[in-house]
Amino acid sequence: MENIRFDEATDSLYIIDQTLLPNEEKEMLLSTAEEMYDAIKLLKVRGAPAIGICAGYCLYLLCLKINTNSSTDFCSELEKYADYLNSSRPTAVNLSWALRRMVELAKANSAKPVEAIRRLLLEEAKTIHSEDIEMCRKISEFGLTLVKDGNGILTHCNAGPLATSRYGTALGPILLGTERGMNFRVFADETRPLLQGARLTSYELYKAGVDVTLICDNMANTVMRNGWVQACFVGCDRVAANGDTANKIGTCGVAVLAKHYGIPLYVLGPTSTIDLNCKTGADIKIEERDPEEIKTMFYSKPMALPGVKCFNPAFDVTDNELIAGIVTQEGICRPPYTESLAALFKD
Amino acid sequence: MENIRFDEATDSLYIIDQTLLPNEEKEMLLSTAEEMYDAIKLLKVRGAPAIGICAGYCLYLLCLKINTNSSTDFCSELEKYADYLNSSRPTAVNLSWALRRMVELAKANSAKPVEAIRRLLLEEAKTIHSEDIEMCRKISEFGLTLVKDGNGILTHCNAGPLATSRYGTALGPILLGTERGMNFRVFADETRPLLQGARLTSYELYKAGVDVTLICDNMANTVMRNGWVQACFVGCDRVAANGDTANKIGTCGVAVLAKHYGIPLYVLGPTSTIDLNCKTGADIKIEERDPEEIKTMFYSKPMALPGVKCFNPAFDVTDNELIAGIVTQEGICRPPYTESLAALFKD
Repeated sequence: MENIRFDEATDSLYIIDQTLLPNEEKEMLLSTAEEMYDAIKLLKVRGAPAIGICAGYCLYLLCLKINTNSSTDFCSELEKYADYLNSSRPTAVNLSWALRRMVELAKANSAKPVEAIRRLLLEEAKTIHSEDIEMCRKISEFGLTLVKDGNGILTHCNAGPLATSRYGTALGPILLGTERGMNFRVFADETRPLLQGARLTSYELYKAGVDVTLICDNMANTVMRNGWVQACFVGCDRVAANGDTANKIGTCGVAVLAKHYGIPLYVLGPTSTIDLNCKTGADIKIEERDPEEIKTMFYSKPMALPGVKCFNPAFDVTDNELIAGIVTQEGICRPPYTESLAALFKD
Repeated sequence: MENIRFDEATDSLYIIDQTLLPNEEKEMLLSTAEEMYDAIKLLKVRGAPAIGICAGYCLYLLCLKINTNSSTDFCSELEKYADYLNSSRPTAVNLSWALRRMVELAKANSAKPVEAIRRLLLEEAKTIHSEDIEMCRKISEFGLTLVKDGNGILTHCNAGPLATSRYGTALGPILLGTERGMNFRVFADETRPLLQGARLTSYELYKAGVDVTLICDNMANTVMRNGWVQACFVGCDRVAANGDTANKIGTCGVAVLAKHYGIPLYVLGPTSTIDLNCKTGADIKIEERDPEEIKTMFYSKPMALPGVKCFNPAFDVTDNELIAGIVTQEGICRPPYTESLAALFKD
């Protein structure tokens, strides 16, 4: 079962509704613009690359609803649909990136008949998807060189197939290695407050037949101290020019523990998350979220008094000195990152 | 409102039902042996010292139900009641300790009339209670010398008044300092999976007017990294002769982070938790608990698939080298602990 499935024969787009996981594994059909908007807004499809892939197919499907023979009118209507979808999660970089890529392709081909533009848009949506699969596969291949059969691997949050395409990033080497008959023992941090590790990572690895053990975040220390972990694999939301890495809250804590126990921590992600304009982690603004995510969300009763304050940062920044390597589709960058990351963008 | 309240005028014992916190603050009367047994077994009263205090009053109240003028028969019946209460939580050291103390006092005075023994038992129960208050006060006084007005303090799990008597141990310096007009900014780890930090610590500190901020366990790194924490205060379940300390799962992780950021971590607890027969932390057996505590407990729906494995250790062991001081009612022990802890027991 794939997180995003496009059936070309019937022009039908299906997603796994991630809000129902792990209790219900249900595909839903996205047909109307409103259904697409809601699916992105309500996190039924989530994970930056997955949102981008989904948006590409969505815009193709919406272009079929534009009833005109004028390519100019077609492009103008297409842009309106793109703006509408883009407003569903205004801060999702991959969403606007994918939609812009589709709209710009249409505009660049506005001399062609509408039907030809439609065919180009379908190909572009499929390309966005296949590019992501290819990128994840390359990251997975590079990552797989960092571990050995039988290794224990700790991961935090979710950077697996549900958030991307096949393989994922941080989970990619594990899934690729498992396909090749290797055995890993994976520890998945549950990742409070939103529990992506419990709800998604342990789900994905369990379904793929990986030996996965779910732990609370505060147990990562014990599994490392017990000698059960040989490497930590985490994803990334933004990597600064010096290698400082913003990722899900708790990542930096895992990195400090890993350093204490002499375990390498690797960051895995596409080069698109590397932002050379961002000098260091200090330039990365950290989003603070609703205290109710800590106090009431998921629970049958509140776990703290209404008056109790919470601090709920969505991300943290891991200092580059705690990172053993940054694994991209172009290869593995090693310290000093200011040089190795810049080298990726030389051409 | 006190966690355990004995009204001498009416021979009535009230406890705050801790299972209802933080949503309901309700005193319940313990009258029958069955009510007492259930209160301990079902964690309505919890925390080793609190259980001991409660058990003392319980056994006194039960001795009023023994209808005999024979002191020998009285002692024999008393012992049966003690055995019954003790079976409610067989591994709770303070429970058996308090019950034995009461029974032994009765036996030592079995030459006296029943009414006299009853009076002695009441005094003993009150003494157990007042000794704990005094011990917590001393620990709090010593602990208070380790922080300054305005400091940020991080704590993990719950070692406050609900678990002990007035003040508590790890929360003692904070509550005592607050009484004296000092201001602290406290960060309470929610402490997964059982959320004692959210349900009890943030509740206790908020009620006492302390500036408390609840965080997920994986956010401790961020508040330390931000420079908001000047000291960590944690309780202890067992301290080995070399200072290695078993405490709630996650404590050692906090200690590793604190060391990384140059923040002192202090362990606070009575000398009764120091076990010189236990040479190092390696001798401390760690209880593993039900995976459902991680996957389903407190939640309105399961957060992981039924087949997903969990590792759920109740405690971890913090290496002595990560501990800046161990604060007891006799004073503050500093490294090397093998010497400073042994010195406590010299007389």
